[in-house]
This record gives sequence, structure tokens and C-alpha cells, in this order.
Amino acid sequence: MKKFINSVDSLLDESLHGFALAHGDIVRYNPEPRYIARLNPKAKGKVALISGGGSGHEPLHLGFVGSGMLDAACPGQVFTSPTPDQMLAAAMDVETGGGVLFIVKNYAGDVMNFEIAGEMLDCPNASVLVHDDVSIPEHQGMGRRGVAGTTIVEKIVGAAAEAGLNLDECKALGERVVRATASMGVALTSCTVPALGKPTFNIADDEMELGVGIHGEKGRERIGLLKASQIIEQLAHTIDEELKPAKGQEVLLHVNGFGATPMIELYLLYDLARQYWDSRGVIVTRSLVGNYTTSLDMAGASITMTLLDEELTRYWDAPVHTAALRWGC
Amino acid sequence: MKKFINSVDSLLDESLHGFALAHGDIVRYNPEPRYIARLNPKAKGKVALISGGGSGHEPLHLGFVGSGMLDAACPGQVFTSPTPDQMLAAAMDVETGGGVLFIVKNYAGDVMNFEIAGEMLDCPNASVLVHDDVSIPEHQGMGRRGVAGTTIVEKIVGAAAEAGLNLDECKALGERVVRATASMGVALTSCTVPALGKPTFNIADDEMELGVGIHGEKGRERIGLLKASQIIEQLAHTIDEELKPAKGQEVLLHVNGFGATPMIELYLLYDLARQYWDSRGVIVTRSLVGNYTTSLDMAGASITMTLLDEELTRYWDAPVHTAALRWGC
Repeated sequence: MKKFINSVDSLLDESLHGFALAHGDIVRYNPEPRYIARLNPKAKGKVALISGGGSGHEPLHLGFVGSGMLDAACPGQVFTSPTPDQMLAAAMDVETGGGVLFIVKNYAGDVMNFEIAGEMLDCPNASVLVHDDVSIPEHQGMGRRGVAGTTIVEKIVGAAAEAGLNLDECKALGERVVRATASMGVALTSCTVPALGKPTFNIADDEMELGVGIHGEKGRERIGLLKASQIIEQLAHTIDEELKPAKGQEVLLHVNGFGATPMIELYLLYDLARQYWDSRGVIVTRSLVGNYTTSLDMAGASITMTLLDEELTRYWDAPVHTAALRWGC
Repeated sequence: MKKFINSVDSLLDESLHGFALAHGDIVRYNPEPRYIARLNPKAKGKVALISGGGSGHEPLHLGFVGSGMLDAACPGQVFTSPTPDQMLAAAMDVETGGGVLFIVKNYAGDVMNFEIAGEMLDCPNASVLVHDDVSIPEHQGMGRRGVAGTTIVEKIVGAAAEAGLNLDECKALGERVVRATASMGVALTSCTVPALGKPTFNIADDEMELGVGIHGEKGRERIGLLKASQIIEQLAHTIDEELKPAKGQEVLLHVNGFGATPMIELYLLYDLARQYWDSRGVIVTRSLVGNYTTSLDMAGASITMTLLDEELTRYWDAPVHTAALRWGC
């Protein structure tokens, strides 16, 4: 295993400590229990938005803490859910009278631990569940996984909370964004989890994993390497079938890298995805290209689409000031 | 070779086309000869700042085109210098009466081709040469290579040009930033150049290349894998010996990933570098952590330090609106 670490045990704390130092103008770090909280002042009574999950997907979620997005992020160990005491402490810290809304990716451990935290806080239903991975059927097992669409949910709900929407409105809006969002990914290589010290799965030099999860979960199909245009055809077709954007529909297109894919390739994928939807009369009005929901050092990428309307576009465009997304302020 | 491409020949154009589509509010793409130019209006008579070099280091340079930074970037093929006609065409396009300043990384091909372009434009000396890689001796061969410090030079000179400094002043400032900046990197794996189709160099599972160049050039030493704290000790010590920051000196600390290194590791390296200089009384007042000067899919990272003063800090903080760096506007 080739990684910049001192020890598997100290990796997360050292990294979080560095993150908080590097972005000391935006966040602060509470080491016990672990959470990253927003430093910038916020309006009294604003809904407190909290997310979290296993580490290894950076900048998700800690890079999205700051004004216009999250109030706190609770990082678990690498690919391991955070524990309820983290969410509880974060909530008690950042809540200012407007209630707490959790944004939770659909994984068994995350769902359970955020649910326990919600019950302890006496707000059992205050969460938005993200399940945008359309590579797997909707009603299989735990259902669809939460992947790169999470960034879009957090940005839009973050802006709405900042604008003064109340808890119910923020939750309804978040669920609307989830319904309007679909993602699908593909892996060329496995990631290597530090505690394991070897690749999560084996994959031949001429194979790829279509529909891979962001922890290296099995996807839809293991197939031979395809050209980029054929890969986009598969991903875009699946997303298109799901969301069925009408001609003239405005959308947000997000090309997300899993960590080890060069930007030169991500922009090529973006170009191909644009061609796919441009030719169908779907209008890409907002774009995000880069490594936002990563899977450690996995080579791979995902495509995410969100159907936009005037309200969602306005919240997407609203000022945001975080480590990983920053515009308008 | 596992990459998202259609063909080696079309990779660059498809990627640049996608880049310009994704950032159509900031840049436009001229395909023949190839350059990316700033879209945002700029003051008449502002010094036109142009950089460029081989592709594969994204977001450098094209991600730095926009207000407050570069007016144009000329991308060559992957790890191949751009040709003088690119710089000439870009200069004729973006010059508005204030003259042209080239920011050039110290590689034989880049230096020669920017020089030819300068002569064709009848401004033979209007370039700032970046040579911040302190892993190799100053007067060996071509001298030191230009690496991740380039981002800092382009940001600071970009802000100065925006503020109305003239050509001589921008050039002098750029050279001052170069003198105040030192970088050193380390590779854990090689990158794979698409046209070659296999790793540029072989490296064992228990080895690392200390002082590696951003194209995979041989570094200072091939040594056994070290712990992150020992790696930082080596890099920081070399930089510290070069810049000799006094106790109380304010500095900018930039931890740069080479492309395939997860953010969790980059922030850990940042934490260790901070400890190194904090303990020596050097005051890190500005930070930049992320993949800015990459080497395709290489796993590795570099540390860059710039000695700051009031003027350099002010230009660093000035508004910038590019694909890869954005703040204050």
C-alpha cells in the first residue's frame, strides 16, 4: 500500500486537523466526538444542516461546510459510518432555534446512526435521504445508494436554509432535489482502503465496473474496457431513462471524478455527455466538473443530472463559501 | 492503459472543448491554433498575461484563465510544449495596449517556443521564468524546473495586472515571487502518458521518488517508502534551507497533489508541514491544498512555500474568478 500516512489509526485525525488549519477562516474542528462545524456567523433561527458519512469521499462532506451549505459534517473512519454521538454533539453545537435537518446518503449504517441521533434529539423525521445511484433497481435490498448527487442536494438545501426556509420546507425541497437527480458511475480500478492495505476488488487490465458504488461496491456489470463515447452512452442512457428530461428541459450536469482520474479525462467525459443531451434538446444550464465525491484513489467517474426549475437554479447560483465550493461571496 | 478516451489523437481537443463548455461563463476556446482565452471583460491597457505548456497538469494553466489571473493559456499535447503560433495568436487576441507578459515554466521546449513567440511579437524579454523546484541544484543543466509554484506566480501577477501595474512592474513582481518561492515533490507511482500507453518509469511497491518532476523526471533520490512525517521532514527541510524564513516570517503554504492522491492524504501532509514550520516560528497566513499542478494520474504530492509581505499577500487575496481558483468575486 502506497499512501502518505503515519499510521492507519491516526490518519483521520491528522487529516481533519490539517483540514481545519488550512480552512481556519471557514471551519473549526471538534475532535471528540468528531465533527467539522461552520465558523462563519449565521442567522439565528436558520435551519441547521448536518451531513456526514464514512471518510474517503473528500471533499464530501467536510469541504461543503460553510455559509450557504452545511453547518456541520460528521466524518466516520474511512468508509465507516459516523456514530450517533457525533451527530448529536454537532447538532447541539450548531442548532440556533430553527431545528436540525440531516442529509443522509442511503447506506445501512448511516441511515441507522442518523436515525438514532434524530430520536435522541427528539426530531425523528428530520432527514433527507439521498439515493441517486440509478445503476441498481429502486427496490433491491436497501434500495439505491447515495452518491455524487449528494453535493447538489447539499448545495440547494444549503442555500434554501440560508434564505430562511423553515425545517419542513427545507426537507421537502431536499426530497424534491433527490427525485430530480440521478447518477451513475464506472470504475477502471479499485480503491485501496488504508486499514485493509490492498485493493478492495480485483479487476483485470481490460475490464471496467459499470455502475460501481463509491466504496467499490459491485455495480451493474463487469464488462470489457470501452471507449469513452461508449461509456457515456451507457451512463447517460440509464440516467435519461430514469429522469426522462423533455426537450427544452433545463438541467445541471455534474461529472464527478472518483479520485485518481485526471481532469483532462473528466472534461472529455463532460464533452461527450453534453453531446448526448444537446442532441436530444436537453439544455445544460449549470455544470460542475471535478473530484467532489471521491472513492479514495479509485480511477473512475460518475455522471449526475438534476432537472432544474427556476427555484432550484436560483438556490444553486446562491452564494456559497466552503473549502470545496465557492462562488458569489 | 486504463483511461477515459476515444483516441490518443483526439483526447486534447475533446477535453478542451468540454472545458470551454463547462466554463462558458469564464473562457472561450480557440481550436486552431489552440488556446483558451478569458471571456470576462478586462480594462483597456491591462497587461495581457499568457501562460501555457504541455497538457496533463490540469487545472494548470487553463483552469487559471479568467479575471484576476491569466488572459490566455496555450496547451500543448500531453507533456509536450505548445508551439509559438499558439502564443502568437493568443497574444494578438488578448492584447489591449498594455503589452504581453508570458509566464513560462523552465523546460527547454517551453522556454524556446515562448522566446520565439516573444521575438515574433517584438517583445523579446517579456517573460517571467518559473524555476521553483529546489530538489535539484540551481545551476545543473537547464537549471531548476518550474512546478507547483507556478500557480502562485500566476495568481499574484494576475492580480497585479488587474490592479493596473505596467509590463515592467508585472515582470519585476513575477520575478520577485519566483525568488520567494520554493517547491519539492515526491512520487509514489508513475503517471501513464496516453500516447505511450504504459507507466513513464518503473517503481517498486516499497519505493518512492524523492524530488520527482511533474512529468515523472528523475528526482533527487530513489528511496524506500517513508512515513508521511519523515517525507515532510525531507521536503520541508530542503525548502527551509533554500528560503531560510526567519522567525515571524509570514508565508503561503501550498500542498499540491499530483493527481491520484486522495484529499485525506493531502490534508495530512498539510498538517505535518504546518507542524514543521509552526515549531520554527514561521507563520503560515495563507494556504492552498489540492490538485493544482498535476502529473496526469501520478500518486504523489509537492510542498510549495512563498515568503509573503504586505504586497504579495494583498495580491494573493485579490478577487479571482477562474475555473480552478475563485474567491472575492
